Amino acid sequence: MKALNYATAVALTLLSTSPALAQRSTAFGQTVRNSNVTEMEVQAAQEAWGKALVQISRDFDSGGIEKATQTANAVLDAAYGYNMGPVLFKPTLTHGEQTFRTTREGALAYFVGGSKSFPSDSGFALKGWEKYEYKNAGVLIEGDTAITMGNVYLYDKKGQVTKVDKTWAFKKDDQGKLRIVLHHSSLPYTPEGKK
Amino acid sequence: MKALNYATAVALTLLSTSPALAQRSTAFGQTVRNSNVTEMEVQAAQEAWGKALVQISRDFDSGGIEKATQTANAVLDAAYGYNMGPVLFKPTLTHGEQTFRTTREGALAYFVGGSKSFPSDSGFALKGWEKYEYKNAGVLIEGDTAITMGNVYLYDKKGQVTKVDKTWAFKKDDQGKLRIVLHHSSLPYTPEGKK
Amino acid sequence: MKALNYATAVALTLLSTSPALAQRSTAFGQTVRNSNVTEMEVQAAQEAWGKALVQISRDFDSGGIEKATQTANAVLDAAYGYNMGPVLFKPTLTHGEQTFRTTREGALAYFVGGSKSFPSDSGFALKGWEKYEYKNAGVLIEGDTAITMGNVYLYDKKGQVTKVDKTWAFKKDDQGKLRIVLHHSSLPYTPEGKK
Amino acid sequence: MKALNYATAVALTLLSTSPALAQRSTAFGQTVRNSNVTEMEVQAAQEAWGKALVQISRDFDSGGIEKATQTANAVLDAAYGYNMGPVLFKPTLTHGEQTFRTTREGALAYFVGGSKSFPSDSGFALKGWEKYEYKNAGVLIEGDTAITMGNVYLYDKKGQVTKVDKTWAFKKDDQGKLRIVLHHSSLPYTPEGKK
Repeated sequence: MKALNYATAVALTLLSTSPALAQRSTAFGQTVRNSNVTEMEVQAAQEAWGKALVQISRDFDSGGIEKATQTANAVLDAAYGYNMGPVLFKPTLTHGEQTFRTTREGALAYFVGGSKSFPSDSGFALKGWEKYEYKNAGVLIEGDTAITMGNVYLYDKKGQVTKVDKTWAFKKDDQGKLRIVLHHSSLPYTPEGKK
Repeated sequence: MKALNYATAVALTLLSTSPALAQRSTAFGQTVRNSNVTEMEVQAAQEAWGKALVQISRDFDSGGIEKATQTANAVLDAAYGYNMGPVLFKPTLTHGEQTFRTTREGALAYFVGGSKSFPSDSGFALKGWEKYEYKNAGVLIEGDTAITMGNVYLYDKKGQVTKVDKTWAFKKDDQGKLRIVLHHSSLPYTPEGKK
Repeated sequence: MKALNYATAVALTLLSTSPALAQRSTAFGQTVRNSNVTEMEVQAAQEAWGKALVQISRDFDSGGIEKATQTANAVLDAAYGYNMGPVLFKPTLTHGEQTFRTTREGALAYFVGGSKSFPSDSGFALKGWEKYEYKNAGVLIEGDTAITMGNVYLYDKKGQVTKVDKTWAFKKDDQGKLRIVLHHSSLPYTPEGKK
Repeated sequence: MKALNYATAVALTLLSTSPALAQRSTAFGQTVRNSNVTEMEVQAAQEAWGKALVQISRDFDSGGIEKATQTANAVLDAAYGYNMGPVLFKPTLTHGEQTFRTTREGALAYFVGGSKSFPSDSGFALKGWEKYEYKNAGVLIEGDTAITMGNVYLYDKKGQVTKVDKTWAFKKDDQGKLRIVLHHSSLPYTPEGKK
């Protein structure tokens, strides 16, 4: 059990980006509250997502499904916005009736599998991911929310890369923590002749 | 030329959803300004997008590429947010270096083709679309912005349906018009065994 | 003690406006999150403020300063946004160095007095207020925030009215509760000849 | 006429704060749109307001009411948000039925007088203002809006100071220009014994 708690602690540490100062005083004694999102916060949230995915993979290798599940739960609590309402999630490899996951349960099933409610899920985060990179095509910032579109590159243990087209929407909660509220991931389109 | 102008007028009419009242007086003589997005405005914008796509297809059939291009230009001006800055667009069938289109030129090329800058584009809006339906998995509304995720169904003249997974982000401009600022469209994932 | 707890309960009930639904499902199974402020929520928050002020006055009459203070504390916790950061408060009768109150302590002192840190405060909420009315000149709604400007009328036990010019800014917290984050109250200007 | 145009040009120059970049590309070729307000933009808008008031006074001295009126018109167009809807304005010295000014006409009358619709107005901006200072008690920033509360100090030609308690709400328009949408100004409260 100790090991599992440690894994959770690691995951939470990986995900903890310093939340924006909710209040401070300037040199003139003026009080300022600013809940707006900065580009740096967007970047930190994007990096945290990738580190979390890699961490779940590593914990699966070292501690099995129990450890991976505990880490995945910690990731969902730390990086997604279920504390603020529904999260719109279209994972890379879902299809049919279960394409869209708007609940925490559906997201957990996608990452670590083993859910009777989502029998097609085999656990995307268990695929031995070793490295993560992202490249934004663009970022739109609106108050305490932000949207990004771009590519994410996932490298597995054999050095093979999986490239996905990804849209994320983030929203800052009352504690100043930026959280994923929409996540659309899709495999790149392959023209017929190139398949 | 008259016919082309008429096509443009039709397209603009199809797209014109009554903008929110920027100002009004209540029974108590109170002045109210409310720039928030409503669900009804989101629904209207989603319907307008589909009608516009079908209109471009019809104009291509009746008036050729010149008429279709003029309508597509009108659609981009009326429904997308290029007047407010960049628009993040990942069309269904783009790939490689040209996957993401952040400029108006790149969007026009995708819809009607014929651009030297985007040689892979054959004109997605020219494919004989006859009917459009959408089904949201969820809608998140934040002030003068909204995000939707769900399925779009496009029917062609032969009755064949193309289903896509779609995320849209909308933002209201100063004139109260809701516009697309992000558009991520992808073909549904097909598991290996089902291909 | 029982009486004091009861007073607090009453104050909290008076202030509890039904928070906006954070999540719901429509007929089409669509999930919607909408954190935008509505005019009705602004109206409810304005009415709640007046009822709370009258309640503090009544509790002072029935239970003395201890009961009034407990109710005032409940009002500050329920109606103001100290849980989200600083609140900018310019009460009607403050002056000099202590004109602006950005802390919860400064607001409590204004309402019920008795604070060594704010010796000029005699307790604005203890002045026997019996009735409250407001009339907005205008309301501006922006996402999860709203600003109002207008007149507030306070009637005491002798039937005398105190009219103030008042600006309020409200912000909705993560639980969907609209809270005061700015409050500027001032006595109407009296031209020299009319004094 | 030349002099008047010059005055308008000066006023506009005084008010022109560089609007936020609506779009730019980073080192990584990423497109960014960020319409959020910064503290620096708030500061610039507050300084511009004071400079504009002093400019109207100076133009009144050098060019009479015609020149002052033209400058005041330029100030209203450049610094206030009438292009986005109603502006909630409670000037320092208004009273009775005409306390609140929600129209551009009412604001112009307050600054330069001479309006049959607002007979009590003698022209606040014509009072020989020479210098302006402000000190914020606090600033709240929310997306493309900001609220400030604090003191404004106006010095006239005789060196006499007028101190007011002031709340401003600002909103950025589609062109990235921060504009006043609420303005509550009041003379400090004077306790009975100190009058």
